Amino acid sequence: MKELKSVSKLIESFSRLPGVGHKSAEKMAYSVLELEDEDVEMFSDALKEVKRNVHHCSICGTYTEDDVCEICGDDNRDKTKIIVVSYPKDVASFEKLGVYSGRYHVLGGVLSAVNGVGINDLNISDLQKRIKEDGVKEIIIATNPTTEGETTALYLARILEKENVEVTRLAYGLPMGGHLEYADSLTLSKALEGRKKI
Amino acid sequence: MKELKSVSKLIESFSRLPGVGHKSAEKMAYSVLELEDEDVEMFSDALKEVKRNVHHCSICGTYTEDDVCEICGDDNRDKTKIIVVSYPKDVASFEKLGVYSGRYHVLGGVLSAVNGVGINDLNISDLQKRIKEDGVKEIIIATNPTTEGETTALYLARILEKENVEVTRLAYGLPMGGHLEYADSLTLSKALEGRKKI
Repeated sequence: MKELKSVSKLIESFSRLPGVGHKSAEKMAYSVLELEDEDVEMFSDALKEVKRNVHHCSICGTYTEDDVCEICGDDNRDKTKIIVVSYPKDVASFEKLGVYSGRYHVLGGVLSAVNGVGINDLNISDLQKRIKEDGVKEIIIATNPTTEGETTALYLARILEKENVEVTRLAYGLPMGGHLEYADSLTLSKALEGRKKI
Repeated sequence: MKELKSVSKLIESFSRLPGVGHKSAEKMAYSVLELEDEDVEMFSDALKEVKRNVHHCSICGTYTEDDVCEICGDDNRDKTKIIVVSYPKDVASFEKLGVYSGRYHVLGGVLSAVNGVGINDLNISDLQKRIKEDGVKEIIIATNPTTEGETTALYLARILEKENVEVTRLAYGLPMGGHLEYADSLTLSKALEGRKKI
C-alpha cells in the first residue's frame, strides 16, 4: 500500500521541522486527519500568517510584528548595555529571567565554514553603529558555548576592540542542579578555571 | 516580552499534535520563521488538502482519497481473511510486512468507558455484513495489547461467535531482539503461557 498523496505531502512538510524524523512526521500527519476541520483551518492560516506578519526588528534584528520590537521601543530599557545573541529565540531565553533591563542585538547566526556563513552574513555593522550612536558601555556576548559560537564570540570581541566599549562573555561552569559526576570534562575544567571566592 | 500574537497562535496549533509539548511547539513555530516562503505555503496547503481529500474507505474504513481504498479495490486480495484493527494507521503497519494478502477492517477506536466510546461508536455492523456477503473464513483481531484493546477484542469475539467464522487474536510474547531481563512480567508470563514446540 502506497502512502496517500495528500498524506505524503504533509509528512514531507512536517519532516522539515527541527527534531522531527520521518516516523514522528507520519504520526503528526495522521493525527491531523483526526483534528476538527476548524482546527486544521486555524493551523493552516497560522502558518501563513506567521510568515506574513513576523519579521526582523529594524534596530536589533529580533522577531517583531511591528517595525521596531517591544524592547527597542521601550525607553525604560538601558541603551548602554547590549546582550549579543545569535538567534532571535535567544532573546526570549534572557527575557524569561526577568533580571536584565538592557537591550539586545541579534547577529543572525554564527560564523561557520561548514554552512558557509561568513562575517558579512552576520549583522555586525548595525551593532557598531548602535555602539557609537547610543553611547553603549557594555557588550555582553552570549553566543552558544559551541565551537562555532566561541569562534564568533572571539571574532566579535576582536572587532569591537577598536570601539570604546567593555566586551564581556557569559560565564562558563557547572549547570545548576547538576551533579559533578555527570559534568563533561571540558565544562568541569572551565568551572575550575572560573572559580570565584565565596 | 510577550510572545508575538502570530507566533502564539502557531504554537497553539502545533501543541495539538500528539507528543508535542509546549517547548517543542515553540521550537517548531520559530523554525517556521526560518523556512522559505514557498515551503510554508506548501505546508499550509498540505494541511488543508489532507483534510479535504482524505476520508474513510466505504468498505473497510481505512483512509483513502477515493471511494474505496487500494486494498478493497484489489481483486487479488483474499476476501475470506480480515485483520480487524482499531485505527487506519494500523493497516500500514501490517502492509509494511508484505506477508499478508487478505483484507482489513477498521473499527475506528477501542471500547473505552473513560473516553465515552461504546459499542455503537465502533464500525462492527459493517464487519458483520462483510462476513456474510464475502464468505469470510477468518477474522484476525489485531487491536492493541492494552486493557482497552483487550476488552474490545474479547467483546468482538463474543459478538462474532454467532457468525460462521474462525476468530483469532495476534500472539502475545517477547518482542524479537529484546532481552529476557527487560521484559515486563506480564509479557513474560504471556510468552510462557503461549509457548510452542520447536
